[in-house]
Amino acid sequence: MSKIKLAVIGLGGRGTFHANVLSEMADVEITAVCDVYEDRVANAADGVEKITGNRPNTYSDYKKLLKSEELDGVIIATWWQTHIPIAIAAMKSGIPAGIEVGGASSLEDCVSLARTYEETGKFCMILQNCNYGREEMALLNMAKKGVFGEIVHVQCGYEHDLRASVARSEETRYHRLPHYIYRNGELYPNHGLGPMMKLLNINRGNRMVSLVSVSSKAVGLKEWAKNNLPPEHYLHNTPVNQGDIVNTIIKCAGGETILLTHDTTLPRPYSRGGRVQGTKGLWYEDNKSIYIEGESPEHTWEDFYEYIKKNGYEHPLWKEYFELDIKEQGHGGMDYLVLRAFIEDGILKSIPPIDTYESALLSAITPLSEKSVALGSQPMDIPDFAHGKWLIPEPAVNTKYGLN
Amino acid sequence: MSKIKLAVIGLGGRGTFHANVLSEMADVEITAVCDVYEDRVANAADGVEKITGNRPNTYSDYKKLLKSEELDGVIIATWWQTHIPIAIAAMKSGIPAGIEVGGASSLEDCVSLARTYEETGKFCMILQNCNYGREEMALLNMAKKGVFGEIVHVQCGYEHDLRASVARSEETRYHRLPHYIYRNGELYPNHGLGPMMKLLNINRGNRMVSLVSVSSKAVGLKEWAKNNLPPEHYLHNTPVNQGDIVNTIIKCAGGETILLTHDTTLPRPYSRGGRVQGTKGLWYEDNKSIYIEGESPEHTWEDFYEYIKKNGYEHPLWKEYFELDIKEQGHGGMDYLVLRAFIEDGILKSIPPIDTYESALLSAITPLSEKSVALGSQPMDIPDFAHGKWLIPEPAVNTKYGLN
Repeated sequence: MSKIKLAVIGLGGRGTFHANVLSEMADVEITAVCDVYEDRVANAADGVEKITGNRPNTYSDYKKLLKSEELDGVIIATWWQTHIPIAIAAMKSGIPAGIEVGGASSLEDCVSLARTYEETGKFCMILQNCNYGREEMALLNMAKKGVFGEIVHVQCGYEHDLRASVARSEETRYHRLPHYIYRNGELYPNHGLGPMMKLLNINRGNRMVSLVSVSSKAVGLKEWAKNNLPPEHYLHNTPVNQGDIVNTIIKCAGGETILLTHDTTLPRPYSRGGRVQGTKGLWYEDNKSIYIEGESPEHTWEDFYEYIKKNGYEHPLWKEYFELDIKEQGHGGMDYLVLRAFIEDGILKSIPPIDTYESALLSAITPLSEKSVALGSQPMDIPDFAHGKWLIPEPAVNTKYGLN
Repeated sequence: MSKIKLAVIGLGGRGTFHANVLSEMADVEITAVCDVYEDRVANAADGVEKITGNRPNTYSDYKKLLKSEELDGVIIATWWQTHIPIAIAAMKSGIPAGIEVGGASSLEDCVSLARTYEETGKFCMILQNCNYGREEMALLNMAKKGVFGEIVHVQCGYEHDLRASVARSEETRYHRLPHYIYRNGELYPNHGLGPMMKLLNINRGNRMVSLVSVSSKAVGLKEWAKNNLPPEHYLHNTPVNQGDIVNTIIKCAGGETILLTHDTTLPRPYSRGGRVQGTKGLWYEDNKSIYIEGESPEHTWEDFYEYIKKNGYEHPLWKEYFELDIKEQGHGGMDYLVLRAFIEDGILKSIPPIDTYESALLSAITPLSEKSVALGSQPMDIPDFAHGKWLIPEPAVNTKYGLN
């Protein structure tokens, strides 16, 4: 059997990691790598060659790569603002795209992504690793089994102290600082919202209808800069737009609300701020606890992992993963799982578990949130990129990595 | 020295409790009690007489009480919708009012409250017991000492499973059910928001400028009714407006954001959902933890009470309370403290630690939130009842129960 031919475009830390993980897979071949920085290209090519013995073709221009290579799929791990444009170019070249997480630059990009899928028949899947997180999958399993009753409200977010990596992102060519200087909104909705969209059956009998975003003042990054950057750094004299805390509340057609938090420029322990709440009980990420009426001692939290162990709610995919004899493959295994989902369900079966409409929708939260903030927290309508199909969705096909 | 003469209007559980606690105080005399229900009046009068040996005068009409009695103050613990109208009547009769918590019915009521204070010189203090909570006071102490650095974002709320007491509130003459049937918004902002307003210096150099509210579907109360109320109960066939989860985000003039949650019709352990977050670290109520950069182990939560003990952040008022030889006086002591604040700082010094403007403001969150929800989560401006005085406030007077 011939191997699945993949290229990786964008070879920072994340793209290089993907190239290495994919090179370890027996059914995959990294045939090309691409970045605008030559040293990164050489480094990634070295890495792949070291693992497989074969040196991939190298490019600095993704357009040339897409023109020259025969590929089954492409992984795009560039800067946020180029994910969708490069994905569209790949799809138009007949190649399915897996894009790294990050919000869209404009609503138009999201519309174009959905339409390109319809025109080309090639999909784009956002590589939302947290959809395959152990906790997230157990929760999905539990939600489908009705453990929470009727789900009413969820919370999620990205609460990660990134001050150093954002402020120093020029040195590392990560280039995230301009987003914080010029933009203001929910810049990174993916990790929190991706799994919650699945849990709430978004695009399958439910839809996100509208959102409001409220942004706090922006002081965390500047204070960090004052204490940590050399006096000549331009950040000292540059205003920062991006509020330290941006809260977005989304209202769904089913009446559920989603609170989404972006919190990346203040000191804190990491969290994705999870909460799932229904008519039978609720789960909190931050106290690692669950309360289910009639099961838990009255008004008393229970330990979440003990609860899922006791009740056998571990997701089947994770039970299987624990039995795999592979070394840890990034973020506790979920990076491996999302790549296998892209390959096995997406490329081989054309049933990506996070499809193009969903990828467009998830990415669209960013420009919509920016608009809401810019207009003083006005509510924004969230487009339905899939033409009302959510109302009477086609029956779900059960695939190994499916999340329905 | 003559005793402070107080009346209590509204003699449900809360008003009766106040009458009893006040009767235990050596410097206070309950000279009158009032309720529309005769049995409640008799019961409260019995209670006071049992403690003090003196039977208070009894009334079914608060207007007659206000006309007939010589009082130093009145405590109002009636249904939510009559707190402000009765307070206004008391102030117009020359009597300072302490009102129980609960949101206003209309913005007009809040404006009238502020103007009545200006016209009469008599104050109204909302008896926000949680302002005197041990945790809240330690946090206030810490915030003033700069432990959190510049405060950027806070969260608070009322997350209390009230399904049984709301659905059965006719039986108990608590009459809260109509609020849930007909209204939809942040019905009970006080417990969470009161302490956070102090922490953010609202009306003293800061102001709440605008809010948005988003309400979830309303299913918790109906599901509870199905399982717990007799089939003939009218709630089965009555739609409920009040969303199970109402989130409100407030933006302050200083750029801070406040997330306020109303969550009373789903099963859950009790919480006031607290979070205080600044440039140096943050506190969470739900995991009972704090993280302060440079003090806490990197990226790791610390136990909150161990932290305040280690650093001596217990509030002086609480240190003193622990040394008082009194029996526990409600909600772990804070009920006692707020009543003493009303008496010692309010009545005796005319410096209520929660003043009329603040009481009006806190109460106004409810009608503003309802309006936002009704208009699809449009942002609402929050009035400044105190004519811009927050910009250059008068120097704070340090009183025993002061919260500045």
